[in-house]
Amino acid sequence: MSNGKYFVGLDVGGTTMKAAVVSDSGQPKPSVVLPTEAAKGQEHGLSQMCKAIQQATQAAGLTMADISGIGVATPGTMDIAAGIILDPPNLKPWKNVPVKQHIQNYFQIPTAFQNDANAAAFGEFWVGAGKGTKSLVMFTLGTGVGGGIIVNGRVVEGEHSHGGEIGHMKIEMSNPRQCGCGRYGCLEAYASATAVVKRAQELLATKIKGPSLLREILQNSKEELPARAVFEAAEKGDEYAKEVIDRTAFYLAVGTTNIMHTINPDMIVFGGGMTAAGTSFLQQIRNYVNQLAFPVPAERTRVVYASLGSDAGFIGAAGCAKQLVLDQ
Amino acid sequence: MSNGKYFVGLDVGGTTMKAAVVSDSGQPKPSVVLPTEAAKGQEHGLSQMCKAIQQATQAAGLTMADISGIGVATPGTMDIAAGIILDPPNLKPWKNVPVKQHIQNYFQIPTAFQNDANAAAFGEFWVGAGKGTKSLVMFTLGTGVGGGIIVNGRVVEGEHSHGGEIGHMKIEMSNPRQCGCGRYGCLEAYASATAVVKRAQELLATKIKGPSLLREILQNSKEELPARAVFEAAEKGDEYAKEVIDRTAFYLAVGTTNIMHTINPDMIVFGGGMTAAGTSFLQQIRNYVNQLAFPVPAERTRVVYASLGSDAGFIGAAGCAKQLVLDQ
Repeated sequence: MSNGKYFVGLDVGGTTMKAAVVSDSGQPKPSVVLPTEAAKGQEHGLSQMCKAIQQATQAAGLTMADISGIGVATPGTMDIAAGIILDPPNLKPWKNVPVKQHIQNYFQIPTAFQNDANAAAFGEFWVGAGKGTKSLVMFTLGTGVGGGIIVNGRVVEGEHSHGGEIGHMKIEMSNPRQCGCGRYGCLEAYASATAVVKRAQELLATKIKGPSLLREILQNSKEELPARAVFEAAEKGDEYAKEVIDRTAFYLAVGTTNIMHTINPDMIVFGGGMTAAGTSFLQQIRNYVNQLAFPVPAERTRVVYASLGSDAGFIGAAGCAKQLVLDQ
Repeated sequence: MSNGKYFVGLDVGGTTMKAAVVSDSGQPKPSVVLPTEAAKGQEHGLSQMCKAIQQATQAAGLTMADISGIGVATPGTMDIAAGIILDPPNLKPWKNVPVKQHIQNYFQIPTAFQNDANAAAFGEFWVGAGKGTKSLVMFTLGTGVGGGIIVNGRVVEGEHSHGGEIGHMKIEMSNPRQCGCGRYGCLEAYASATAVVKRAQELLATKIKGPSLLREILQNSKEELPARAVFEAAEKGDEYAKEVIDRTAFYLAVGTTNIMHTINPDMIVFGGGMTAAGTSFLQQIRNYVNQLAFPVPAERTRVVYASLGSDAGFIGAAGCAKQLVLDQ
């Protein structure tokens, strides 16, 4: 499958960035991880990105002359077409960072720029859970709910770089919960890890008197956002924890149904930390989808977990670089 | 703009079908309308379609030899890729009708097949309100809420012919209203003409004692589905009617926001009977969008009324025929 071309994919996150060379057929070489150190300023950040790209190339036993294209994925907000990070909440104090231009100028190699959730979706589409599918929508379940839409082999970036912000679909408008974005009724406010923990804490504060398995497991968790503890309590039989998980699966099924009734892709993929909950959670989502969606897409759309883990972002970024080079 | 090529577009509805020749640049020739007469069976229906295509060609002063392609749009349910109407609720007793194959065999001319709401969206995109835009999503507001999504110049048909069923996005899950599709919480249950009338009737039955302007106008209406009467009562100052219209605008803004946060198109278009309500209704929708959506798409996405009226379907069908011929 490979014609000997290599691409570097770089996925920039709030705390670290991960890069690797990816072959023409989507196979990654050993990856490197560097600290993002956003607080040190955007010049330093751009320099870290260049360093990560160089180190990844070295780790693959290659030189920059072997690299046909570079793909960089970053968190929002951004202007994808212009290649600029605008005012990213997770990369303060960066502002209006010309990522694409800087890296392209530095290496003199064609450089693609993409939203990180879009890149992860493209990675899963290219060589992950969605390999061989015609279209795919990915939900990334973490602190928030991210997403990416792939139709006709392309990321649906949107005309204002807001394509695939599927965590901010509104799904409840009567007495809606407030979302991390400040607005109300978004899927993210009902189905993110943050929402799982919040709903569990609400139940503990209002409905659960005295000792409870859920309270105990939550209090013993050392995680900053102990969604995993809620899943654990549910597995161990805590009724309130089960209720929280059940509602989360229900709302993810609502989001899934909305995607089936708009994009109607071949496959819907869930990625991110919450997929550690295992196949029973996925089955709960599927069961609700069967109740909510039209029978044909409910039956035929494959609803699965992602397969590339935290490599999806840089692999997808490299895939975008490949697409850029093919388009040229 | 024209290279002398002509296409016939045919839009099949529950009671009538409308056809016309459309030039390469999207200009329609005089249209013809025939009764669908679904009750007479699908063989008769297919024969009516062929007759409409022939009559439209004659009305344009052309012969079939002048026609480069034919496009047929029909209501669902359907298998778009296979060119088959499956089990359409508005065309009983038709079942598994091979529309595309039949018409292509009959005329020996390349034939495109499309969902009617998708075709209307494509018509508005090609030469209507969305002419010159890069991407567009259309809501068709009538008895139900139909829709079509155009990205990268193509209809998003979906892998199971359910693309653009945006009236069946779920937007309320607590105590949700039942939709015409039998399911719950769909946009259509909150924002169709049917929903407008239903909500008005609910208010009359429960909250409004004695005579009221809304009651009077509704009772005097001779329309089967008197949504227009509710808009009229609102214009004349009836507070309950105003409330109904306000809620309808709000829910359409929710649907619009969900499209901005998933597809993020250049333009969102409203078509169908309810747009007779005029620009103040559109402005109400826009005002709510500004509250609900992210600032960048809320500010930059053009939210407008359709411009082709009931011609959008056959013009879009002809546009799909043109695209089919170009692809070959």
